Amino acid sequence: MIFLDAASTTPVRREVLEAMWPYLSGEFGNPSSHHSLGEAAASALADARSAVAKVLDCRAGEITFTSGGTEADNLAVKGIALARQAADPSLNRVVISAVEHPAVEESARYLERVHGFTVDVVPVDGDGLVTVEALGAVLRRETALVSIMYANNEVGTVQPVADLARAAHALHIPFHTDAVQAAGWLPLDVKALGVDALSLSGHKLGAPKGSGVLFTKGRLRLEPLIHGGGQERGRRSGTENVAGAVAVATALNLSHAEAAAASADVAALRDNFIAAVREAVPGVVLTGHPSRRLPSVASFCFPGTSGESVLLELERLGVVCSSGSACAAGSDAPSSVLLALGISPETAQTAVRFSFTSAVTAAELEHAAAAVAAAVGRVRNLVNHPK
Amino acid sequence: MIFLDAASTTPVRREVLEAMWPYLSGEFGNPSSHHSLGEAAASALADARSAVAKVLDCRAGEITFTSGGTEADNLAVKGIALARQAADPSLNRVVISAVEHPAVEESARYLERVHGFTVDVVPVDGDGLVTVEALGAVLRRETALVSIMYANNEVGTVQPVADLARAAHALHIPFHTDAVQAAGWLPLDVKALGVDALSLSGHKLGAPKGSGVLFTKGRLRLEPLIHGGGQERGRRSGTENVAGAVAVATALNLSHAEAAAASADVAALRDNFIAAVREAVPGVVLTGHPSRRLPSVASFCFPGTSGESVLLELERLGVVCSSGSACAAGSDAPSSVLLALGISPETAQTAVRFSFTSAVTAAELEHAAAAVAAAVGRVRNLVNHPK
Repeated sequence: MIFLDAASTTPVRREVLEAMWPYLSGEFGNPSSHHSLGEAAASALADARSAVAKVLDCRAGEITFTSGGTEADNLAVKGIALARQAADPSLNRVVISAVEHPAVEESARYLERVHGFTVDVVPVDGDGLVTVEALGAVLRRETALVSIMYANNEVGTVQPVADLARAAHALHIPFHTDAVQAAGWLPLDVKALGVDALSLSGHKLGAPKGSGVLFTKGRLRLEPLIHGGGQERGRRSGTENVAGAVAVATALNLSHAEAAAASADVAALRDNFIAAVREAVPGVVLTGHPSRRLPSVASFCFPGTSGESVLLELERLGVVCSSGSACAAGSDAPSSVLLALGISPETAQTAVRFSFTSAVTAAELEHAAAAVAAAVGRVRNLVNHPK
Repeated sequence: MIFLDAASTTPVRREVLEAMWPYLSGEFGNPSSHHSLGEAAASALADARSAVAKVLDCRAGEITFTSGGTEADNLAVKGIALARQAADPSLNRVVISAVEHPAVEESARYLERVHGFTVDVVPVDGDGLVTVEALGAVLRRETALVSIMYANNEVGTVQPVADLARAAHALHIPFHTDAVQAAGWLPLDVKALGVDALSLSGHKLGAPKGSGVLFTKGRLRLEPLIHGGGQERGRRSGTENVAGAVAVATALNLSHAEAAAASADVAALRDNFIAAVREAVPGVVLTGHPSRRLPSVASFCFPGTSGESVLLELERLGVVCSSGSACAAGSDAPSSVLLALGISPETAQTAVRFSFTSAVTAAELEHAAAAVAAAVGRVRNLVNHPK
C-alpha cells in the first residue's frame, strides 16, 4: 500500500513511541501530586513544554497542551474572543477566511449563535489566497479576533500569515493561525510570523491522536473551554496527558529539525508528481496555488469522474488517498473550500487529494501517478459507457 | 514504595497497553477516512463504544469519548444547561453539591459568570452525604440541571444517586453524576442509577491519561464544548483518539468485571487499615461516611500535625499518598470538601488520603498503618518540641 493521505493522519514515529513509553508504564504519576511519582511527571511535562517553546521561539508559559488541533482551534477562537468581549463588550465580531478548517469555522459560528457575535468571512482568490486587501476590507473596530490558517488542509495553499497578522495588528486586533497542516513543513517561529496564537496537532506530525498545542502570546487572556482544577495555568483543566505532551513535543521537535530539508525534497517530488499527473490525465485541474503550497499536498479535480469512484479505483491499485478533508468525510456536499476557490460544485465533486509524509519516495509517486491515470481512465470510461 | 494514591491516578494496566498498541502502531488510520486504514480505525472505535455501552447498560450512540473526566464533566454541565436554556430561556439555574470536583463546580461557575445562570449549592451533612430533603429544598422550576457526584474523591462518601435522580426527575430536571471515582468499585448501570448523564475518566481505571467517557441519555441535547468536523455525532469534534478510546473501554471492562469481588476484598482491607490507624494514632478523625464510602478510600485528619508534613514523613517511610485531591494540589487553602463537612480549617489542614487500587495487599496496608503511626508521632513531636 502507498499511503498518500498524510494530511488526514500520520503513523506514530518510533522515536515518539520510545519517548512516551515511560509515561505509559513506570512513570505514571499525576503531575499535580506532591510526591516523587508526581514530580517526575511534572518534570516530563515541563521538559515537553520547553521543547515545544523552543521550536516556536516563545516562552514555555505561552504553551498550552490540548487534546488536539481541534481543541486548540476552539480554545483560541472562542477563548480569545470571549475574554476580549468580557473586557470590552463592543468587541463582538470575529474574522475568519472562507477556507478555514471546521474547527475554526464552527467555533466562530458558535460565537455567533450563542454569544451574539458577527462572523466576517474574508474571501479567497482562485488559488485559495487571502490578500491583505481582502482582509483589510472586513476589519472593524469591533473585531475581537482574526483567525486565518497558515496552510490549507485540502488544497495546500500557504497564506501570507506575517502580512495578514501585521494588517490585523495595525488595528490592535490579535491574530490566530491554525498551523496544523503547516507544521513539519513551514517555519513555526511565532515571532517571525507575528501571530498572537497558533494551533498544532500531534497526529499530523507522527504523534498519536489526542494531543495538540496552543501557543498564546504573553498576557493575552483566554476564557477556557474546560474548567476545573486549574491545570495549564488555568487555561485548560484536567489531569495533563503527560505521554501525549511528550509525544507531541518529540514529534514536533523531530519534524522541525527535518523541515527545511524535507520541504525541499518533498516539494521536488510533488512537482514531478503533479507534472506526471498532468501529462497522463487529460483535463485535470490542479487546485490551490501553483507555487505557494505545502510541499506535501498535490490536489486535483478530475472532471468527468466522481472523486469517490477514483478513490476506490486507486485503493484497488494500492494507493490510499482522500477526496479532501477527512474531517468532512461522510458528507456528500461538495467541499466548501473548493467552492470558495470558485470551482463549480460539479467539478468539486471530482476532487482527490494526495498528501505525503517526509518519507515519501520518487518510486511511490511514479507508481501513484500511473495509478491515477489508470483510475481516472477507468472511471471516465464507466461514466461514459455505463454497463 | 507502597502506592496509596490511586484516587489521583493509576498505572496503565498491561491488558490496556496490549489492547491499545495496534492503534499506536500499524492501525493508525483516521476513523473519518474512507479507505481500509480509516475503516479499521472506525471499527475499533465502534467496538470500544459498544464495550463501554455494555458496561453502562446503554446504547452505543449514547457514549461520547472525551479527553478525560474533566472534559466529560464540563460537557455534561455546560452542554446540557446551555442546550436546555436555548430551548427555554427561563431555565437559568443549576444545582450542584457542596463537595463536587472542581470540574463540575467550575463549570457551574462558568455558567454563572458568562451565561447568567444562578448556581444553587446543596449542602452535605457531616459525613458528606447529600440527602433527598436537602436536594428538594433547592430544586426550582428554573433548574436546568442537577449535577451530584457518585462518590467523593477526597473522603470517599457515596451518594444515594438513584434517590437524588428520582427527586430531580419528579420536577422533570435531568440529572448528571460524576462517576470518576466510583468506576471500578460501584455499579455503573445507568438505568438502575436513573441518571441522564454520567462521566468517567480513563486514568483512574488503568488507562492512560487523556481519555474519558460521557454517557448522555437518548435524545438529551448537548451544546458541544469543542466544535468542528462533527465527530462523535456532533457532540465532540476532533479526530478521535482511537487508542485512548480502546484503552478506556478495555480498562472499564476489566475493572467492571472485577468490581464486585474487588469491592468486597478491598473494603475489608480498608476497614482493617482504618481500625489499625485508629488504634495506633490517638485523636485521629476518619473523614467521610463511616460505611457509605468507596472501598478504596481511607481518609483522615490528624489533629496536631500538618497534612503536608505527614505526607513527607510517609514518603520517607516508603508510603506514597495525598493530602486530598491532586486537582487542588499546589493550593494552600484548606479543602473546601472538608470545610463543607463541617471540619474546621485547622483540622482540614491535617488531612491525609489513602486510596487503593484493587491490587492492594494486607501486608502493604499493615506496613502503611505502622508508617502512619510513626509519621504522625514524629510530626507531632516536631510541632510540640520545635528545634
